Amino acid sequence: MMIVMKEGATQEQIDHVVERIEEVGCSAHISKGELLTVIGAIGDRDRVAALGLEAAPGVDHIVPILKPYKLASTQFRKGQRTVVEVGDAKVGGDYFALIAGPCTVESRDQTLTVARTVADAGADMLRGGAYKPRTSPYSFQGLGVEGLRLLQEAKEETGLPVVTEVMDARDIENVVEVADVIQVGARNMQNYTLLSELGRTGLPILLKRGLSATLEELLMASEYILKEGNDKVMLCERGIRTFETAYRFTLDLLAVPTLRELTHLPIVVDPSHAAGRRDLVKPMSLAAAAAGADGIIVEVHNDPEKAICDGPQALPTDTFNEYAEHVFRVAEVAGKRTSRGVEA
Amino acid sequence: MMIVMKEGATQEQIDHVVERIEEVGCSAHISKGELLTVIGAIGDRDRVAALGLEAAPGVDHIVPILKPYKLASTQFRKGQRTVVEVGDAKVGGDYFALIAGPCTVESRDQTLTVARTVADAGADMLRGGAYKPRTSPYSFQGLGVEGLRLLQEAKEETGLPVVTEVMDARDIENVVEVADVIQVGARNMQNYTLLSELGRTGLPILLKRGLSATLEELLMASEYILKEGNDKVMLCERGIRTFETAYRFTLDLLAVPTLRELTHLPIVVDPSHAAGRRDLVKPMSLAAAAAGADGIIVEVHNDPEKAICDGPQALPTDTFNEYAEHVFRVAEVAGKRTSRGVEA
Amino acid sequence: MMIVMKEGATQEQIDHVVERIEEVGCSAHISKGELLTVIGAIGDRDRVAALGLEAAPGVDHIVPILKPYKLASTQFRKGQRTVVEVGDAKVGGDYFALIAGPCTVESRDQTLTVARTVADAGADMLRGGAYKPRTSPYSFQGLGVEGLRLLQEAKEETGLPVVTEVMDARDIENVVEVADVIQVGARNMQNYTLLSELGRTGLPILLKRGLSATLEELLMASEYILKEGNDKVMLCERGIRTFETAYRFTLDLLAVPTLRELTHLPIVVDPSHAAGRRDLVKPMSLAAAAAGADGIIVEVHNDPEKAICDGPQALPTDTFNEYAEHVFRVAEVAGKRTSRGVEA
Amino acid sequence: MMIVMKEGATQEQIDHVVERIEEVGCSAHISKGELLTVIGAIGDRDRVAALGLEAAPGVDHIVPILKPYKLASTQFRKGQRTVVEVGDAKVGGDYFALIAGPCTVESRDQTLTVARTVADAGADMLRGGAYKPRTSPYSFQGLGVEGLRLLQEAKEETGLPVVTEVMDARDIENVVEVADVIQVGARNMQNYTLLSELGRTGLPILLKRGLSATLEELLMASEYILKEGNDKVMLCERGIRTFETAYRFTLDLLAVPTLRELTHLPIVVDPSHAAGRRDLVKPMSLAAAAAGADGIIVEVHNDPEKAICDGPQALPTDTFNEYAEHVFRVAEVAGKRTSRGVEA
Repeated sequence: MMIVMKEGATQEQIDHVVERIEEVGCSAHISKGELLTVIGAIGDRDRVAALGLEAAPGVDHIVPILKPYKLASTQFRKGQRTVVEVGDAKVGGDYFALIAGPCTVESRDQTLTVARTVADAGADMLRGGAYKPRTSPYSFQGLGVEGLRLLQEAKEETGLPVVTEVMDARDIENVVEVADVIQVGARNMQNYTLLSELGRTGLPILLKRGLSATLEELLMASEYILKEGNDKVMLCERGIRTFETAYRFTLDLLAVPTLRELTHLPIVVDPSHAAGRRDLVKPMSLAAAAAGADGIIVEVHNDPEKAICDGPQALPTDTFNEYAEHVFRVAEVAGKRTSRGVEA
Repeated sequence: MMIVMKEGATQEQIDHVVERIEEVGCSAHISKGELLTVIGAIGDRDRVAALGLEAAPGVDHIVPILKPYKLASTQFRKGQRTVVEVGDAKVGGDYFALIAGPCTVESRDQTLTVARTVADAGADMLRGGAYKPRTSPYSFQGLGVEGLRLLQEAKEETGLPVVTEVMDARDIENVVEVADVIQVGARNMQNYTLLSELGRTGLPILLKRGLSATLEELLMASEYILKEGNDKVMLCERGIRTFETAYRFTLDLLAVPTLRELTHLPIVVDPSHAAGRRDLVKPMSLAAAAAGADGIIVEVHNDPEKAICDGPQALPTDTFNEYAEHVFRVAEVAGKRTSRGVEA
Repeated sequence: MMIVMKEGATQEQIDHVVERIEEVGCSAHISKGELLTVIGAIGDRDRVAALGLEAAPGVDHIVPILKPYKLASTQFRKGQRTVVEVGDAKVGGDYFALIAGPCTVESRDQTLTVARTVADAGADMLRGGAYKPRTSPYSFQGLGVEGLRLLQEAKEETGLPVVTEVMDARDIENVVEVADVIQVGARNMQNYTLLSELGRTGLPILLKRGLSATLEELLMASEYILKEGNDKVMLCERGIRTFETAYRFTLDLLAVPTLRELTHLPIVVDPSHAAGRRDLVKPMSLAAAAAGADGIIVEVHNDPEKAICDGPQALPTDTFNEYAEHVFRVAEVAGKRTSRGVEA
Repeated sequence: MMIVMKEGATQEQIDHVVERIEEVGCSAHISKGELLTVIGAIGDRDRVAALGLEAAPGVDHIVPILKPYKLASTQFRKGQRTVVEVGDAKVGGDYFALIAGPCTVESRDQTLTVARTVADAGADMLRGGAYKPRTSPYSFQGLGVEGLRLLQEAKEETGLPVVTEVMDARDIENVVEVADVIQVGARNMQNYTLLSELGRTGLPILLKRGLSATLEELLMASEYILKEGNDKVMLCERGIRTFETAYRFTLDLLAVPTLRELTHLPIVVDPSHAAGRRDLVKPMSLAAAAAGADGIIVEVHNDPEKAICDGPQALPTDTFNEYAEHVFRVAEVAGKRTSRGVEA
């Protein structure tokens, strides 16, 4: 951590900062330039941060040097990439996975039809929501336990591992009986008590980026899970909030190669929610795969026009096979191994 | 809801949209312009929205006309403003309240010293955190139940009602024994299960705007509380996330007069977190009062340099009296009644 | 244009709005719902907009229905896509073009070396700046006329058409002697007098999106050029400003398929400026091509470490051939014809 | 400037960075922490920045320490504040000025009526546009030279100095004959050739913040004017672009006290364009004055419903006197001297 003093800071003010750094067992390293002085604090970052030196007399501002996340950092695994294994599927490193399914579990017929379609097209996991976070309290909130039961049936029939969301720590008990991967939605990315409890389940977690979360905050959120001893965390870019109103969210694909440098964790992209319209979902899926994503999670429906939730962005089952083929092809150009490639 | 058809939409496509609107018991009203056709859907907004017509063939886009919130809307109370009463304090309508106290409850001495100072300066309520949402799992997470006990003691001594945050529905039981107002932090604004449970406590709720939440989303979040029969909700602007990095968040004071038009609920401003530095807190407090806020919630510490959390933005106790006087004076220019004005 | 009245608007207020619409020669179409009334104004959009009805008594808000741009709209060319031809290069429709070269023209050696490299790798045009917009008045501002001369020499040697930027209408005269395409930088996207003058040159224009411009504003800016009778406009996404600080700008690739629906003009992507670092440039170039871009404009340098301007984001000449090959391959998967494909 | 090396950077990489810093005549100061090494570059900031070290091998990132602006910085004037004098009006330091008038000069009657009203209410300057930057090429673009003539007449009659905008350097010659202050609109904040020419006029300049410009960029833009020897620059906050769509722009009042710390230049606020609606203009004007603004620039019209441009946000002449009185009163609470206070 670097403490940049104001121009004209007095020796007394400099001494005071040094003293406080030393009080918490760290050491100070002074560097005097022509115009101003910079004090490097060497030692435990968190202790120095807790001093709140940005408001000490004579201090202009503080520059953090060390990254605040530890377990998630590339350095922590010495450059080795984490590959999350879920049943036969692998996500991360050289492996690309396609996760597909309905936004919401609505009925037995819908769930099984979609599950069969995505399985046939080579998808690696089945997604589907039983508990749905909804902006309006007057909207459909998901089938709950009944939805979980239908996902279980689809899993038994297709063999696909199941990805589903939890919003409330009190539902974890039910969800873990069915889920192979638990999803944390964007609105809950900083629901810290939920993250800690999910860490303790030991199950793979798909952690969605909050819609105005920085990459650093996303990594700090993953740290809440990792510190419970659960290192099976997949990060998910799903669009951020910007001034542009032509689409619901702005899909931030620069996050993909940037996260690859910062962390060893796999990076998945959800192109459905940002686009909000199915004709945009395929170009953005291809773009995500080209950018080097380790996986894509996408919404599919057998009758999108009748979907209870987010029908406009669901890919129809009848073109899904072609969609999946193109996605896999681009992922392979980007250097990944895919389920189709492996079969070939 | 208006369904705007694409230029060149066919009669068949128009008929299809009309049919679907009528299927859900609403009526359609067609308006043909020179270039394109607009179909007004008259009836239950939520049912038409659930149709997902934005993806129907020939549809260009959908324009919602009715606001999605109901109980929070100005129309719901026919223009009458909600005044939330908490002990002797009143917030909303003509009444302005100053809520002050430490960011985090750290110790008995700190809590009581700050509480006495803010009570003497005419503050209307005491704020203080026992459960703290922290970006880093390695930071201090609050004193928990012990913190609640200290707030209780401060309340008994000063008579000030207590405002404190809950992050986990499982802590509500403990918090309601001490809190007069429960705060929902920005990160939990869309934690819907928490909001519903807080609605059921019947206690006044201070609901902070999420850092990238639109005003409409803030009002929809309040709707989760209101629909439980709890109409004692105060909305709180605390800064939004923008591209500007010169401060932590951008305090959005246009929200104050805009919310006043949209809702009957009181509007409180938290100037501490956006500013992040105490020299900015006073100008922004005065600005918030001038903009017509119904209250201000601000952080105060007896020894900011030693504060465990957010010390740099805490106002020091020794200048708090003058701060409060200036804030009350501007609130009165803006047409409000304040605790000092009432005493005078 | 739809005028949405407030709940409880009086008949007199409704009549007043209708009257004003009719005063400017348009007709009004009233639609009464259960809660409120919507008035459709049919006729010239600009005249109704100029009425400023959003502030008329009883009006809640105004919803524009027609798009404000005309010549740029997909409808204007009845769905046919514009292909801009520059020498042998084609951009738009089925054609993909790679535009590459140094950020700034620095020297004869640098310019010719880079030009030869990109020509050999199959690039379709040479980019290079002679006039540079710089945030700091203390930074290098470009070689000016001498830079243009060097571009001319590179063009003669390689046969590549030249793309270069103009910042001041008074430089157009010099630039048109060399340039085959004139670039408008992001900071000048709304420099309307410059746009009109460039329209009058009749040369192809590469119009960069302002860093907080909506797609609609980008299209309105293109309209300033198109209305001068110059329809050779290429739009360029180059990153927008968001809260994320991990990169300089957020490359908004959703703009590519969205613009394709809104306009007949070709869409080019500049991945260099958003990334700011060369290791991010290749993944984002592949992503842009996968998203369906009609072209990519990218910075290349023979000695990036010594580059006067933006060296960190320049691709080195020694790996450019491989870069170009991968970009062309992905563009072909996305359905485009490329210079390499044509040769094959 | 601090160069932060990656964890695991080699001694060779560190030496290379040091060498390059020394090559440009600066000195390097190495600070080795437990995990990583930081190299301080001491000397000319611009030369080190031009090295582009962020892409050198082993470098993680660069942290600028010195601010990039010089003439605009508080330090440059050793803490003394610039007071811009325009006729009898003073802006900056202890002085608050109210600048008011029509958005666009439309007619003799409108201009003179508004000018008399604002003069009577104690406004310090008259604003009015003769050249208007318009998003649409199909909108009214201003009366041009005829508009300047009308402003001249209003100035002669009321004695108020005139503030008017220039968009094109070729119009400066005409404008300087009438204008006492030249305004640079938000869209032209980074039109560097225009800024330099305006610097050379020697007239006071009102420089509006671009709608996604950081405060640092605003100060850098002012530097283009200051470096021509013209130190009469007023900065103007007028709203920034964010995700919130409830208003046109988000008025960023934290800019006011923050700029006060960073620069000696006066800070003016334009509340009209962000609000977009007149009922929001007064609360935001009071808020700006309370935040410590040195001036407010606001739009006034004698018949807002008939205004050619931005009528909905214009304050009507008939309530302007009361508006001005409230604004002056709050400015005085915030410690400013105003024209009314001086008269009293």
